[in-house]
Amino acid sequence: MATAIAPEVDKTAHPFDKANLEALLSRRFFYAPAFEIYGGVAGLYDYGPPGSSLQANIISEWRKHFIIQDHMLEVDTTIMTPATVFETSGHVARFADWMVKDTKTGEVLRADHLVKSVLEARLAGNLEARALGGQPEAAKAPALNKRKKKDDQKSVSVKLSDEVVSEYEVTLAKLDDYSGIELGELCRKHEIKNPATGNEVSEPQQFNLMFASSIGPTGQHPGYLRPETAQGHFLNFSRLLEFNNGRIPFASAQIGRSFRNEISPRAGLLRVREFTMAEIEHYVDPEDKRHERFHEVRDLVLSLLDRDTQYAGSTAPQKLSIGDAVEKGLVANETLGYFLVRIYEFLIKIGINPTRLRFRQHMANEMAHYATDCWDAEIHNSYGWIECVGCADRAAYDLTVHSARTGQPLLVRQALKEPIIIEREAPEFNKKVIGKTFGKDAAPILKTVESLDEAGLLKLKGELVQGSAVITVGEGQQFSLTAEMLKIERKTFKQSIREFVPNVIEPSFGIGRILYTLLEHSYWARKDDVDRGVLSLPPLVAPTKVLIVPLSAREEFDPLIREVSSKFRKAGVFARVDDSNTTIGKRYSRNDELGTPFGVTLDFASLQKRTMTLRERDTMVQLIGPIDDVIKVVTELVEGDIDWAEACRRLPVYEGVQAV
Amino acid sequence: MATAIAPEVDKTAHPFDKANLEALLSRRFFYAPAFEIYGGVAGLYDYGPPGSSLQANIISEWRKHFIIQDHMLEVDTTIMTPATVFETSGHVARFADWMVKDTKTGEVLRADHLVKSVLEARLAGNLEARALGGQPEAAKAPALNKRKKKDDQKSVSVKLSDEVVSEYEVTLAKLDDYSGIELGELCRKHEIKNPATGNEVSEPQQFNLMFASSIGPTGQHPGYLRPETAQGHFLNFSRLLEFNNGRIPFASAQIGRSFRNEISPRAGLLRVREFTMAEIEHYVDPEDKRHERFHEVRDLVLSLLDRDTQYAGSTAPQKLSIGDAVEKGLVANETLGYFLVRIYEFLIKIGINPTRLRFRQHMANEMAHYATDCWDAEIHNSYGWIECVGCADRAAYDLTVHSARTGQPLLVRQALKEPIIIEREAPEFNKKVIGKTFGKDAAPILKTVESLDEAGLLKLKGELVQGSAVITVGEGQQFSLTAEMLKIERKTFKQSIREFVPNVIEPSFGIGRILYTLLEHSYWARKDDVDRGVLSLPPLVAPTKVLIVPLSAREEFDPLIREVSSKFRKAGVFARVDDSNTTIGKRYSRNDELGTPFGVTLDFASLQKRTMTLRERDTMVQLIGPIDDVIKVVTELVEGDIDWAEACRRLPVYEGVQAV
Repeated sequence: MATAIAPEVDKTAHPFDKANLEALLSRRFFYAPAFEIYGGVAGLYDYGPPGSSLQANIISEWRKHFIIQDHMLEVDTTIMTPATVFETSGHVARFADWMVKDTKTGEVLRADHLVKSVLEARLAGNLEARALGGQPEAAKAPALNKRKKKDDQKSVSVKLSDEVVSEYEVTLAKLDDYSGIELGELCRKHEIKNPATGNEVSEPQQFNLMFASSIGPTGQHPGYLRPETAQGHFLNFSRLLEFNNGRIPFASAQIGRSFRNEISPRAGLLRVREFTMAEIEHYVDPEDKRHERFHEVRDLVLSLLDRDTQYAGSTAPQKLSIGDAVEKGLVANETLGYFLVRIYEFLIKIGINPTRLRFRQHMANEMAHYATDCWDAEIHNSYGWIECVGCADRAAYDLTVHSARTGQPLLVRQALKEPIIIEREAPEFNKKVIGKTFGKDAAPILKTVESLDEAGLLKLKGELVQGSAVITVGEGQQFSLTAEMLKIERKTFKQSIREFVPNVIEPSFGIGRILYTLLEHSYWARKDDVDRGVLSLPPLVAPTKVLIVPLSAREEFDPLIREVSSKFRKAGVFARVDDSNTTIGKRYSRNDELGTPFGVTLDFASLQKRTMTLRERDTMVQLIGPIDDVIKVVTELVEGDIDWAEACRRLPVYEGVQAV
Repeated sequence: MATAIAPEVDKTAHPFDKANLEALLSRRFFYAPAFEIYGGVAGLYDYGPPGSSLQANIISEWRKHFIIQDHMLEVDTTIMTPATVFETSGHVARFADWMVKDTKTGEVLRADHLVKSVLEARLAGNLEARALGGQPEAAKAPALNKRKKKDDQKSVSVKLSDEVVSEYEVTLAKLDDYSGIELGELCRKHEIKNPATGNEVSEPQQFNLMFASSIGPTGQHPGYLRPETAQGHFLNFSRLLEFNNGRIPFASAQIGRSFRNEISPRAGLLRVREFTMAEIEHYVDPEDKRHERFHEVRDLVLSLLDRDTQYAGSTAPQKLSIGDAVEKGLVANETLGYFLVRIYEFLIKIGINPTRLRFRQHMANEMAHYATDCWDAEIHNSYGWIECVGCADRAAYDLTVHSARTGQPLLVRQALKEPIIIEREAPEFNKKVIGKTFGKDAAPILKTVESLDEAGLLKLKGELVQGSAVITVGEGQQFSLTAEMLKIERKTFKQSIREFVPNVIEPSFGIGRILYTLLEHSYWARKDDVDRGVLSLPPLVAPTKVLIVPLSAREEFDPLIREVSSKFRKAGVFARVDDSNTTIGKRYSRNDELGTPFGVTLDFASLQKRTMTLRERDTMVQLIGPIDDVIKVVTELVEGDIDWAEACRRLPVYEGVQAV
């Protein structure tokens, strides 16, 4: 028996070729522009069969990894949302990007993207010029945009002074932190114009990113499509808490579509107007953000790019165990740290390259005003470092504003193990006298006094001891109170229930961004032929796990095909038969492009001796064995119980003709 | 060993109590009105944990039953759709309902629902009156609505004449077939008014049911939220056909949200503004709608309520095997018939009561104008017979209109096994002479002649033989042709490729309607206590399969709980631990309401002897056995390999205290 040594495959023989990958993804219909036959609409994409399947597998693993393993409560809430909800949440006022208009053509551009693409193009042009040995021409640099360029990514070879280079680099590192006014200033200072026309651009204006609609037949009820699933969780908080028997911490989770009316979407699946998200809202005691499973993840080392490093104009992350990061205060609390690790583990499991994954902390202006800390899982791909998962501590913001607006309490009531004894000042009214003295003003006076804090009560107490006190009610009406009306005394209270608004830690996943980046990380081409692309997707998420390839279309193969198909189905392994009318080699090539990790071939020996060959996608090594043995090996491979090296120990190499 | 005989459970001890079911569904958060704390929005619902899980399980089974078993191509297309697409498909012009307005309050009502509720209330009042022995008072009947009623479902006891009863019944049977004008006539004839106010209603007006929005920052690109997923399939037809190696028949499938801006949504999950659909578009040769697996389903008997029966004013279906129904022409073709059976099998598998399921054929006006046949799977629940699945033959309509609008061919090219030899007249031009004679008019002249059909060419040929012929080009310009310019002769052509636009058979599922109806069919209450509700959901779709109940909260149980949980997880059985601080009986009651089919109890005997009891939800019978044996039995029960009677043969009855 010839034992195969799993050979090392050189996946870096060719540099990454984006055009080839894009051609493959289109040819095999992973995804394509939506409404393509109508000319398409920017930022809208449809997934074809392999893309849908890959997405379904990523989501299925997400459900297992997060919802099942951490006992989360799944919800499925509506996309269409009445305007009031987003008025309360702040989205109507603040969920916006800064856009500028070309002052002549009226073309609309996103301000920060404009600044980024122009400065990056100038920096690239500088590198090019220096390589060509030119002289710095800093003074000329701003003039660059006067030349008309069709492609704003294209750089023009002009050397910049060291000071200008450094200024551009710092600006780019802090880009997410600029306000609209600052972006306008940058455009003026650096003479940034519309690269497509060379025209000047207007001052930045806010554009709300929510799609608006109207609910019902009368047109009187404005609604928005949700830009995130989060509000749907928060509005159901009380029901969820009850479902969890009133206990905290717990998390809700939701997978679903969201919509953002992007100003000028580009970059394929990375910036789209409709996308699938997976969001977790983990509700936690604001005074205790420890996590009971933190000890399980404490030692895992992450690449962390913190806020201060970015303010210093650097983008170099530090490697730190999450335990140390929380201890040092870099990551705000254990629960946030726990989720960073769980996010890391999930991404690695589905096939993201760990060396191209980092966690970047939000800067002050970038972070939502209510958040106390926020880290993005950024994954590197051909577009740069892309935010694929956000993980924010939203504090008590959302529950507080919805509760205030609706008057519904959104809080946790916890029986204290030991009642707390509190001593504090408390007013005691003589309501009869107050009523007689002030009439209809009595009620607001009582309310005002009751709403005073400890300091206010002490002040009042002091004045009453002096004889009388003046209090201000409502919008400035003043009343004089006497010791006859009101006594303020120190009293003892026993508190056996603690009420609080929980804080929310929110990991939020953009499934499309993860899916696209995974495709980039999985793609390579055979050493001998740059056009023979392979997607090395892990079996866990590969659209099809096994390809069944009958060598002949003759009818006598049918019973065997049915048998093998049915055995894979019973073993829970998703297999497809390819009986198309082409060579085995072409069929395997197609399936390398589809990311199918294993292939089994049924040939005449299968009919006679009940053997079957097994081909591995990356190495193209073929093993052979009895049909049932091969099925068993494939099942264990797909379930992750064994690796290919072990498979090579179990089954002999096939010495026949290699169906490459 | 005491063997348990699986006892018969009397699930009909109490009549179906909708209020109790609704209270249960709300209490256990299967679903709830969306934005409840904001007062809710009609027609929008959120699913809580058990509802989400039930929905996910139904969808997962749908994917297995249809996509995997019939090798369909899954797609995932966008919800946001540019207006042009729905202009082409006809939705902008025709996807509308008839609404009437209360002439005084302006309240908007759906016209057909108004007619239905008023006539049904009168018929109910008539039955009541006859039971009370009253006299027919047909003349009074129309006056009924002058009485103000808060609840338009409420009937008032007034006897109707036999003729009026019969007229109402025929009207109701044909209700889906009326046009807007006819609905207006019905309102006038039967003096139908707004039951809530007693006011007259306006003439019916069309209201388009699509939610409108606008794509991009300029506001110049109108869009709609899709009201069905189908167009997303059709627009990708060419890519899908290529993915399927150019072969036909094949089917695409999609599961996703759709939106309909219903006029006045009621009836809970049955009529909502946002819902999850699962749709199949099966592309088939218009000249051959046979199905290769039809023989597998031929003998299955369905309840079929055909078109003619409804025109005759009856709603009594006939029982017929699908083979006979297709043979008789009742169901238009094998493929449609195949899908009716597959729909039936799916619904039964997830727990729908087969005696409350029928297939109703659309009447002429009810059917989309392009469809050639359409059958709805209607399931009976407390609201009546509800369409839960539609199954239509959409013919070549959609592909044809999109192809015409975009100029993109959406067709199948099939190599003919035997080329077809065709003899036909063909023009042969002397282009030189034509060019010289007509100059720039030559090209349109050639085009006009080439576009003539056989009869046209023969006519021209006859005229040319006479010397010359006059042809009309474009908008009436006439030219005289001679035999020198043009010869027309009979020639032989060989055609080896056949091109055609495929027809589409479309099964379309409303997941929410199915889910709600399944909950109704699964609900019953214990004989001894009407408030002890049970949801007898099949293990296949039950949100949780097994409840693990530790009898004590003592720490020594923890390792055993972890062991049992982990063994169930490894066996692929979704289990949850309930260690809440309440009695075992209460925990089981809660889980009966959640539809959890099995429960295992860990008690002190489990620690000492490693035994575990197993409780079945419906019978409440408890068995006992070694932990590993019980896990094996539960796994086989959940996977449907054995039934409870078999489980009772394998494990002895637990004789201890019954934890009811």
